[in-house]
Amino acid sequence: MENSSFLQFEQKVKKDPYANFLGIKLDKVEKGYARVSMVIKEDFCNFLGYIHGGVIFSLADQAFAAASNSRGVVSLALQMSISYIRAPSVGDTLIAEAKEEHVGSKIGLYQIKVMNSSNQLIAEAQGIVYRKQK
Amino acid sequence: MENSSFLQFEQKVKKDPYANFLGIKLDKVEKGYARVSMVIKEDFCNFLGYIHGGVIFSLADQAFAAASNSRGVVSLALQMSISYIRAPSVGDTLIAEAKEEHVGSKIGLYQIKVMNSSNQLIAEAQGIVYRKQK
Amino acid sequence: MENSSFLQFEQKVKKDPYANFLGIKLDKVEKGYARVSMVIKEDFCNFLGYIHGGVIFSLADQAFAAASNSRGVVSLALQMSISYIRAPSVGDTLIAEAKEEHVGSKIGLYQIKVMNSSNQLIAEAQGIVYRKQK
Amino acid sequence: MENSSFLQFEQKVKKDPYANFLGIKLDKVEKGYARVSMVIKEDFCNFLGYIHGGVIFSLADQAFAAASNSRGVVSLALQMSISYIRAPSVGDTLIAEAKEEHVGSKIGLYQIKVMNSSNQLIAEAQGIVYRKQK
Repeated sequence: MENSSFLQFEQKVKKDPYANFLGIKLDKVEKGYARVSMVIKEDFCNFLGYIHGGVIFSLADQAFAAASNSRGVVSLALQMSISYIRAPSVGDTLIAEAKEEHVGSKIGLYQIKVMNSSNQLIAEAQGIVYRKQK
Repeated sequence: MENSSFLQFEQKVKKDPYANFLGIKLDKVEKGYARVSMVIKEDFCNFLGYIHGGVIFSLADQAFAAASNSRGVVSLALQMSISYIRAPSVGDTLIAEAKEEHVGSKIGLYQIKVMNSSNQLIAEAQGIVYRKQK
Repeated sequence: MENSSFLQFEQKVKKDPYANFLGIKLDKVEKGYARVSMVIKEDFCNFLGYIHGGVIFSLADQAFAAASNSRGVVSLALQMSISYIRAPSVGDTLIAEAKEEHVGSKIGLYQIKVMNSSNQLIAEAQGIVYRKQK
Repeated sequence: MENSSFLQFEQKVKKDPYANFLGIKLDKVEKGYARVSMVIKEDFCNFLGYIHGGVIFSLADQAFAAASNSRGVVSLALQMSISYIRAPSVGDTLIAEAKEEHVGSKIGLYQIKVMNSSNQLIAEAQGIVYRKQK
């Protein structure tokens, strides 16, 4: 992508409806990399009183989508695996970083880490995308 | 669980804060099984215009949590893998069903399918829980 | 595939070099389905004295490859997730069954179960393939 | 582990029956880290003529087992997810490295990369273990 279209891409990611619904912010996006963050609200608990796995996954997925679409090719998630390490708390700020491990003509592979504001590992994920041919 | 405590469990799941935030309903829960559903809203789109992976995962995760905690033992997700098959549309009702594949003293394994209202497969997931000793 | 080419496919799977190296037999293959089996040898243990995860995975993977290639389209594994439930023993016969959950123009999704001869669940896996265009 | 018991552990890993059956060598093991390697033989092909997924997984799994058991606590694989990036060739030497991402009282998380001798990514995996209490 040219610089102007990269800026357009960044603006588009910032307007992501579901990310805004949850309060996920795009902190940084580069080619093959993205970092997003969110504050954990009361609404994000599950029936056991822990933060819902779907919230943590959603944050990781937003970093994954931003990183994998950052090269100007529409990239759709095929598969994602997530391992949960530590339960975050209401009020915590969580940060998810996605890094490109591989990008080929059809497939891209990304690793995503979710940390809390004390830099403790909350969850770690691995995802693959299918890159649509134009 | 006794019948009375199972009813209490069911009520607790129905009050899940994040499930209510997204509009996820508990349709049915039995020992080792749960079915949940939700209507896809405009807010659930991502920056590409598709339904966000985090939404589909959250629905699957809610079925997984309800099924795996249905036996009176607190069960925490360790890992979940999801494969995306078909993109759902705004207005669709999605249904997620979780089935117990195995339950042991420490570990439980569940398979979760997400379908749309035309009974088409949207996503399929596999998750394992750690069962806390009392 | 025509009947004659399906028979050729079946013969090809039966000559799989690595499957023969391990002693994996093809019990049955149909379109979208395969069942394979193997006897667990002393050589298949790991340094802890358990059966090596790589052995159990290899059996599951052989069922997955046979099922996913059974429709006459070369299908390459993109991703596989495996959960281990129970350790098998030396001398056991393990059986792996792969079932098609979805097949589209580019992607196929399969579920694979590994059982022992007492019909106990040993491991369960989920795999996706990329279907090569001719 | 004391130095003497770490040496005993290293010797035990080097005698792993299945690793020896496949020709997997332990190159290096430290607390929370392991590197193993193998030469790809003709026997390791599948019926399509590619290197069998079970071979690549077995190498990754051996690095995972060595790294996760390196702290003197018996650690059993619960789950592993692998993504395949590039097909290796007969005669290639493959190297798998496992790194600890997290270790807690009950659960450990590891990331494993499989590379060829040209340092190209062949596969990447993520695995979790259950750490047995003594």
